[in-house]
Amino acid sequence: MIDINFKKKITDSWFSYLQAQICKEFETIENNKKKFRKRLWFKKNKKEGGGVSFLLTGGKIFEKVGVNKSTVEGSFKKEFRSKVLGAEKNGRYWASGISVVAHMKNPKIPALHFNTRFISTSKEWFGGGIDITPSHEDKKEKLLVHKMLEKVCKKNNKNYKKYKNWCDKYFYLPHRNEARGIGGIFFDYELKNWEKNFKFIREVGFTFIDMSKILIQKKRNLKWGKKDKEKQLYKRGRYIEFNLLHDRGTKFGLNTGGNIESIFMSLPPDAKWK
Amino acid sequence: MIDINFKKKITDSWFSYLQAQICKEFETIENNKKKFRKRLWFKKNKKEGGGVSFLLTGGKIFEKVGVNKSTVEGSFKKEFRSKVLGAEKNGRYWASGISVVAHMKNPKIPALHFNTRFISTSKEWFGGGIDITPSHEDKKEKLLVHKMLEKVCKKNNKNYKKYKNWCDKYFYLPHRNEARGIGGIFFDYELKNWEKNFKFIREVGFTFIDMSKILIQKKRNLKWGKKDKEKQLYKRGRYIEFNLLHDRGTKFGLNTGGNIESIFMSLPPDAKWK
Repeated sequence: MIDINFKKKITDSWFSYLQAQICKEFETIENNKKKFRKRLWFKKNKKEGGGVSFLLTGGKIFEKVGVNKSTVEGSFKKEFRSKVLGAEKNGRYWASGISVVAHMKNPKIPALHFNTRFISTSKEWFGGGIDITPSHEDKKEKLLVHKMLEKVCKKNNKNYKKYKNWCDKYFYLPHRNEARGIGGIFFDYELKNWEKNFKFIREVGFTFIDMSKILIQKKRNLKWGKKDKEKQLYKRGRYIEFNLLHDRGTKFGLNTGGNIESIFMSLPPDAKWK
Repeated sequence: MIDINFKKKITDSWFSYLQAQICKEFETIENNKKKFRKRLWFKKNKKEGGGVSFLLTGGKIFEKVGVNKSTVEGSFKKEFRSKVLGAEKNGRYWASGISVVAHMKNPKIPALHFNTRFISTSKEWFGGGIDITPSHEDKKEKLLVHKMLEKVCKKNNKNYKKYKNWCDKYFYLPHRNEARGIGGIFFDYELKNWEKNFKFIREVGFTFIDMSKILIQKKRNLKWGKKDKEKQLYKRGRYIEFNLLHDRGTKFGLNTGGNIESIFMSLPPDAKWK
């Protein structure tokens, strides 16, 4: 059995590595003319950790993209304990993860979201996912996304269909009776076989990089006009509704004394409502 | 003792009257060049009521203003019952109310919010409030707002200070450590002396009309530029965060099968995040 302290150390390092890699790839996409700004934050009690946020705004491709990594620990508030696996008794947790949200300048390129995490309470597990939010329908793009995700799941003996359905169910706005985007994969509570799961989440990370490059490359030169932008801004309104009303990540952040700027880095730079 | 059915009927009528009056006043402010659009909605089970929404967008003064009135009844879901006074047992409720949110084109004019309601479960009570959200500080304006509210409270033997503090506490974004606006009054659970309370909420309605006219009149001709607008858009971001993360009215609406367009009418037409 692998020691939990080793698991914490190596997952933490992995997420830091992947963060740097993603930032580098995204800066390359921007032809290195725009750079990420780095910001460190700590929990009130510094011993409980914090995070490193990278933000790039006003790019040629990325209107706003945040690449966040955090490693935090502490004790959940009583009301929250029953909601977290293995935290029912004493509420202790340790968590490390990376999350990326990219909002594009060109409304024809979809918004991208990716997250992987390792959480340790009295239990320990991986979770994460990739999902895509276009404001313009594109069946070929959708097929491609799901093909790539199916591939990485199959390669790792993971149940793609289950993850796909989970994603559809999770990124759903019940009050609108609408999906947030075209889905992807969402998984959680990957408890057994730590090494295989760790390999899986590493490959999900690489899949995200590959997918980002492909989706952007295919559409970066497409022309767009005011109407396309409007469509994107209304879609972004839905994104905000989802993140503030429903997202577990947002709730987790707010409930664990996370950094507000980092939590809300997922919000688009602007949005509209009718 | 006044019969509950009479109370329901007359409060419902009052809210309809006030809605028409506010719409008329606001159209006058727009020099009658822009008119409200009316929309009816019903709960899935039509017997449980619905509402009438009036929306005016793209005005010279009002960029977006919603004046909603609804009268609904039904039974709260089990999870929600413990959160509503007098609904613990069977969850039955009847509620009627009016709510207004005005987002201004000129960023120097504050956003306005007003709401009054009558709710009947195994108990019955009035609630409501007025609060103001400027994106540009103006001490004189703040003083004026609070003077007017103090006046209507005193006249009706209501505890202005209590209502003011309640408002400050309610319209607060803990995750930002920020107030939403400059406050106003907020009250709820006005259980005793139905007639006096009903008179009070009627006068709060008129105070809202008077205040709107004064605040707009003072600033409608002020010049503003791109920077002022930006400031307003970031402030609107906070407004959205509050409404989606914290607002009880939003939760009430979503939990009682309210009409999504009407619930979200409070959202500004656009917003920005850094």
